[in-house]
Amino acid sequence: MLADLLSKVTQVVVDPSVMAGYETDFTGRWRGRARLVVRPGSAAEVAEVLRICAAEGVPVVPQGGNTGLVGGGVPMDGEVVVSLRRLSALGPVDKAARQVTAGAGTVLSDLQRHARAAGLDFGVDLTPRDSATIGGMIATNAGGERVLRHGTTKANVVGVEAVLADGSVISRLDGLPKDNTGFDLPFAASEGTLGIITAARLRLVPYLTRRATALLGLPSPEAALAALERLRAVGSLESAEFFLPEGLALVRRHTGLPAPTRQEHAFYVLVECAAAEDPSEELHEALADVDAPETVVAADPSDRHRLWTYREAHAEAIRAEGAARKLDVGVPLPALPAFLADVPRLAGDAVPVLFGHLAEANVHVNLLGGTTDPSTAILARVAGLGGTISAEHGVGRAKAAYLTLTRSTAEIAALRAVKAALDPAGLLNPGVIFP
Amino acid sequence: MLADLLSKVTQVVVDPSVMAGYETDFTGRWRGRARLVVRPGSAAEVAEVLRICAAEGVPVVPQGGNTGLVGGGVPMDGEVVVSLRRLSALGPVDKAARQVTAGAGTVLSDLQRHARAAGLDFGVDLTPRDSATIGGMIATNAGGERVLRHGTTKANVVGVEAVLADGSVISRLDGLPKDNTGFDLPFAASEGTLGIITAARLRLVPYLTRRATALLGLPSPEAALAALERLRAVGSLESAEFFLPEGLALVRRHTGLPAPTRQEHAFYVLVECAAAEDPSEELHEALADVDAPETVVAADPSDRHRLWTYREAHAEAIRAEGAARKLDVGVPLPALPAFLADVPRLAGDAVPVLFGHLAEANVHVNLLGGTTDPSTAILARVAGLGGTISAEHGVGRAKAAYLTLTRSTAEIAALRAVKAALDPAGLLNPGVIFP
Repeated sequence: MLADLLSKVTQVVVDPSVMAGYETDFTGRWRGRARLVVRPGSAAEVAEVLRICAAEGVPVVPQGGNTGLVGGGVPMDGEVVVSLRRLSALGPVDKAARQVTAGAGTVLSDLQRHARAAGLDFGVDLTPRDSATIGGMIATNAGGERVLRHGTTKANVVGVEAVLADGSVISRLDGLPKDNTGFDLPFAASEGTLGIITAARLRLVPYLTRRATALLGLPSPEAALAALERLRAVGSLESAEFFLPEGLALVRRHTGLPAPTRQEHAFYVLVECAAAEDPSEELHEALADVDAPETVVAADPSDRHRLWTYREAHAEAIRAEGAARKLDVGVPLPALPAFLADVPRLAGDAVPVLFGHLAEANVHVNLLGGTTDPSTAILARVAGLGGTISAEHGVGRAKAAYLTLTRSTAEIAALRAVKAALDPAGLLNPGVIFP
Repeated sequence: MLADLLSKVTQVVVDPSVMAGYETDFTGRWRGRARLVVRPGSAAEVAEVLRICAAEGVPVVPQGGNTGLVGGGVPMDGEVVVSLRRLSALGPVDKAARQVTAGAGTVLSDLQRHARAAGLDFGVDLTPRDSATIGGMIATNAGGERVLRHGTTKANVVGVEAVLADGSVISRLDGLPKDNTGFDLPFAASEGTLGIITAARLRLVPYLTRRATALLGLPSPEAALAALERLRAVGSLESAEFFLPEGLALVRRHTGLPAPTRQEHAFYVLVECAAAEDPSEELHEALADVDAPETVVAADPSDRHRLWTYREAHAEAIRAEGAARKLDVGVPLPALPAFLADVPRLAGDAVPVLFGHLAEANVHVNLLGGTTDPSTAILARVAGLGGTISAEHGVGRAKAAYLTLTRSTAEIAALRAVKAALDPAGLLNPGVIFP
């Protein structure tokens, strides 16, 4: 019996009440039944699990912090869930190389604390930092709030250790900044379909403790793009986030916070600069050139925290309204105003709540209520504008049917060929990415 | 006949005297016979060429600027050479997104001029900038002199257009900074084995015109590592290169330049800072903390040029001595002194000339003369120190037999599986990377 075989090599969970936490995602929209859950404590245990599952022909679903939004990390029907959370070891920070090795189950905020104690930081930061794990962040190439400065997760990974479908272990944790002995296996954004990431060698950046934060109240997305162009010249710029009045109202209702500005505005942009020395003057100089009806500058850390809450509490505030349909799209920057103008019409009788990352024109579209699903119409519009149907959340099961909107037949065939080469039996995360 | 078929779809070279330039590499050590050379003018022509070659079962060798050093871009025996040099179109610089689209045949210095005219720059720079092409730089994941600041070529690529072995075209030139609709096909460092890159969307960085350059004369590699640790705290640091007295003597003989320092030193480090505002003071402050017996600071641009020549003329000066055996290795930074100390003994009766990129402990080992080939012994030592047998030049044909020294059987099997998935008939650059 499978549970017996697996329990000889790793920790196995069969208690339905414990398994339940692994069977439902963060949004509550994706849930399925796992055959059982394993919690390996090492890459070698992951390898044993995969060898047994391969021999038994049982598909597996890798799972990290279970903060995914596209159904890429929960079982559908009888898979073995491989939870990586126990692989949470953090190696020593190499200050000379500015690197650290982290187990796949390392929670982002633990990594941040560890790196910051050594005067360094991880270049990626995102709202679910207290539950998202490094392995999941690599597997989904997580983006977040500092992409304009440090890139997405893949730009911050030097190498990974991963277990392939046949149980073989690939390890590239030596941290060599230059190593051209063949191409990299493309684990970033592979969403568990090519292998199970067990650890990663990560690039670190200087820990910048001096921050300057401002919220701009603007009349339009066009005004926001003009402001962004000026602000991007600020070398210390790290974040440029946006939200709209509808989302702000939800956040205020959910958090009880007062209005951030004296007047209501059509478009809000939250910017933050970070540097070794106080970047306030640099930010003030740039803001003086920006034509904003209202600008609020954070006076102290608690003020900064409050301004960020208006942006970061969006996901929680939306969740409190019920299960929203979630899209995560990106368009070319100049197309952002046109896209934002189109959404309300495309959304039909659903209420759209939009927020996101301005510099990448990455829009989180949340659709509340509505009698029909406007996803197809909205995603088709994104494709028509030259955008992507998944900017940072990944494809998962939720977006697999839409992949053809923005990736060509030849591209999908090539991705499928790579998938089949590394996982010929299709045991790794079936149904994810590929329709 | 193949030439007839190909000449219907693209430019074909059959004149042996013209073909000769495509059949021998920069070092003169790799030469072979091409069946013929094609010079396509578009991705569509490359696709036609590959469809015809696939139908005829004729292997192809993609070639860019032919500046490779590992025999990865020259024919061996009867392949069709696909020269990408005509694909040299440069798109407009997108200043807001800091991106540009370049044809695979764009020469690096042309890209630099184009970007700099818009106030931006490409993050990768290397000595053969007047002949190396962007497609080749991506296919070999070229490194060079600014990796400590901007990473290797793959970190500066947003997406590529490439033609697969079956003639299908994959295009990811839309420039979206976040796009997680499936993993990327791993064209970087694939050395023409997975597809032929025809264009790329490139990330640009601010063009930094204020530079401060210094040459440090140091007593040992250990002293150089101590200096590097201090200098890395300088935010504007862009390059940290090294060379040794033997190489300096060759360069002086070849160029006629005077000695750069009053006394001879055991180890030379060339550092350069670059910023929007003069970084001299920042560099001076750091140099004051460095225990260097002699430091020469460039007083003006011609002085700067002269200091760089001591480093950059190494390849030419070595070539003037005859065909050297060339290794391009990297070791973990702390292992650099041990490796450098071992090379003379391992080199036997060959004369080693060593130089390279200090921050990545990337050593270019050039072996002049000698009755036996010490490559295996040196590369085995690199592997024993946890290093790489190819830091930035790639594997090509020259290093294929050594791949097993630093990549495991499982890794090589996985790379082979991906190769076979995308090029099942093995038509793309046979003999390259894989032994």
